[in-house]
Amino acid sequence: MAMNRVCELTGAEFPLFAFSHCRDVVAAVSRAGGFGVLGATRFTPEQLEEELAWIDAHVDGAPYGVDVLVPEVIDPSVTALSDNLMRAAAIDPAYQGFTNDLLARYGIAPEPEMPILKERMGITPENGLALMEVAFRHPIKLIANALGIAPAAMITRGKELGVPVAALVGAKEHAIRQAEAGVDIIVAQGTEAGGHCGEVTTLVLIPEVVRALGGAGHDIPVLAAGGIMTGGQMAGMMAAGAQGAWTGSIWLATPEAETSEAFRAKMVAARSRDTIRSRSRTGKPARQLRTPWHAAWDDAGGLGTLPMPLMGMVSEPAFARIERAAAAGNGEARELVSYFVGQGVGLVEQVRSSRQVVQDFREEFLDAITELAASVGIE
Amino acid sequence: MAMNRVCELTGAEFPLFAFSHCRDVVAAVSRAGGFGVLGATRFTPEQLEEELAWIDAHVDGAPYGVDVLVPEVIDPSVTALSDNLMRAAAIDPAYQGFTNDLLARYGIAPEPEMPILKERMGITPENGLALMEVAFRHPIKLIANALGIAPAAMITRGKELGVPVAALVGAKEHAIRQAEAGVDIIVAQGTEAGGHCGEVTTLVLIPEVVRALGGAGHDIPVLAAGGIMTGGQMAGMMAAGAQGAWTGSIWLATPEAETSEAFRAKMVAARSRDTIRSRSRTGKPARQLRTPWHAAWDDAGGLGTLPMPLMGMVSEPAFARIERAAAAGNGEARELVSYFVGQGVGLVEQVRSSRQVVQDFREEFLDAITELAASVGIE
Repeated sequence: MAMNRVCELTGAEFPLFAFSHCRDVVAAVSRAGGFGVLGATRFTPEQLEEELAWIDAHVDGAPYGVDVLVPEVIDPSVTALSDNLMRAAAIDPAYQGFTNDLLARYGIAPEPEMPILKERMGITPENGLALMEVAFRHPIKLIANALGIAPAAMITRGKELGVPVAALVGAKEHAIRQAEAGVDIIVAQGTEAGGHCGEVTTLVLIPEVVRALGGAGHDIPVLAAGGIMTGGQMAGMMAAGAQGAWTGSIWLATPEAETSEAFRAKMVAARSRDTIRSRSRTGKPARQLRTPWHAAWDDAGGLGTLPMPLMGMVSEPAFARIERAAAAGNGEARELVSYFVGQGVGLVEQVRSSRQVVQDFREEFLDAITELAASVGIE
Repeated sequence: MAMNRVCELTGAEFPLFAFSHCRDVVAAVSRAGGFGVLGATRFTPEQLEEELAWIDAHVDGAPYGVDVLVPEVIDPSVTALSDNLMRAAAIDPAYQGFTNDLLARYGIAPEPEMPILKERMGITPENGLALMEVAFRHPIKLIANALGIAPAAMITRGKELGVPVAALVGAKEHAIRQAEAGVDIIVAQGTEAGGHCGEVTTLVLIPEVVRALGGAGHDIPVLAAGGIMTGGQMAGMMAAGAQGAWTGSIWLATPEAETSEAFRAKMVAARSRDTIRSRSRTGKPARQLRTPWHAAWDDAGGLGTLPMPLMGMVSEPAFARIERAAAAGNGEARELVSYFVGQGVGLVEQVRSSRQVVQDFREEFLDAITELAASVGIE
């Protein structure tokens, strides 16, 4: 029997949704009774096709989903730049100079020219829609839009194909707009989340969004996102009104993840206070592990944050250089190693397999509910 | 039968702790089965004596507590200023000028001299300890220290008198230091809380603090604070590891509270995003309702934030003038009306009596647990 409506909609046995850029995590979580969601934004359509074919072959028929980012609006200064060559040309060379100087202080050799992103890569509306079309050619049980209002094409195609559409929000007004646009599931994500996030905490946002949707007559299930690393927290957010948990950071500390050994070691060592919400990686506020990178950009004088996707065209090649240097044994470069991660990083004590994480969530979830029920005489 | 260890320690029937500066709230909550805690920092010792005598006469023998603020360290520039006359003299007149100019833009008449705080008022170690001594002369069942490590005198006197000592923390390291100092209960307060707060959210902080205490061999119950306005959230934080909830903002929206009608109306209208964590009222980061006051201080040029307690000596008389003007019908002054309140303000939909709030919490708490237990087959 399905635990609740979100399980009915998606086919999840246990409403633990696992966002990951790694197909191995997605398949492992779905096979273990959770629900894996592949983050697609870093792939070309051809790459995504390959990833999803792999998942179809390895998920044993369990349900899974895909998350794309179709930006609702793009900065006017970027609209006219129709390809990555033009976008790269629009970036002041001072950005590459600043990055080179910063990395040089950590023993990383300069790279005179910023590498130009392959065509059909980078977060733009066209690229997001192309990825969406690939996703709909596979037997997905959920499609999610990561930022802004889900586009009409996603809603329409989802309804045609019977695929529920989810959308991430960080404020109650956005939840209402998503519901009016026709989404089936709201992922309400608190400020403690890794990656793009708003200002309101998960604990406050969940009841606020649930109430706002109910008050506006939208009978839509809400998943809680941001800070959830244990089954006890998942049970907690369900007590506060959510129908399940949407998680991301916890999967970065699995051996299957795309993260480096250097970053996973930092996750185990980090406290919850070691993250920062900063525009200095994507151009929009996104939570990540704090390193000297962030302070350097705050002090970068006249060099302000570039809009999305330009900021990522500066930062991502730099972070790739940092990772390569760290992997090659440069201890100073390790200081700069960073990635999108939430405050829940303070709860990561070891690297565990994705399967083990799902099992631990299920046990902790049941234990928390059993104990709480017993404390009020229900057993 | 007590629900858990925190109920055993304090005598609370239902582990809902209500922090309030208003004796009526404290007595009403305790009588309704919760646990009222009087915030004492704004009283002289004589005033506190009077308040506690009133509570003793009105609480029907139910348990209650007192919260004082004995700062652990005081800014070196303030240490030498031994009385409020000296402290006032140390404040650059430009602060009063800036405040006068700001308030004048909202139709509030200037006040040439900053009023001087009465002796034995203001947040200093001596004043905090004097209030503590008054509290211990009453049949309190809890004493809490609001900021920093609980002083040795509080721990010693608490043990002598059998009064559990609680301390508020915003980070796991502080919880360990408090446990080592000898406190009996940790109140782990997330960044969404009203008043002084840290950066980590309640949802992350609770399991992080519970684990850190357990890992260090300290068997101390943890109360969850920050953002909790409903019994569902309270149940949620107990699923995540807390033994109860410590609440503040919700009581500001009761008719018994010290808040003005203007502020309560703003609470009902506010969204969760309408608060700000700012140093511009007390000198330390404290969450409050955002008004043009905060932007003005951010832009106040060379006038930085003064250390505690000097900043409050500038801000509190100004907020008193704002409240008087608003109460007298000045609509512009209403725009500046603000007070310490957490992000949970977005969940306040109406003004309810303290007794009603406790009853609603109890019902929501039981409903949330019953429903969650049923979803996993426990009933």
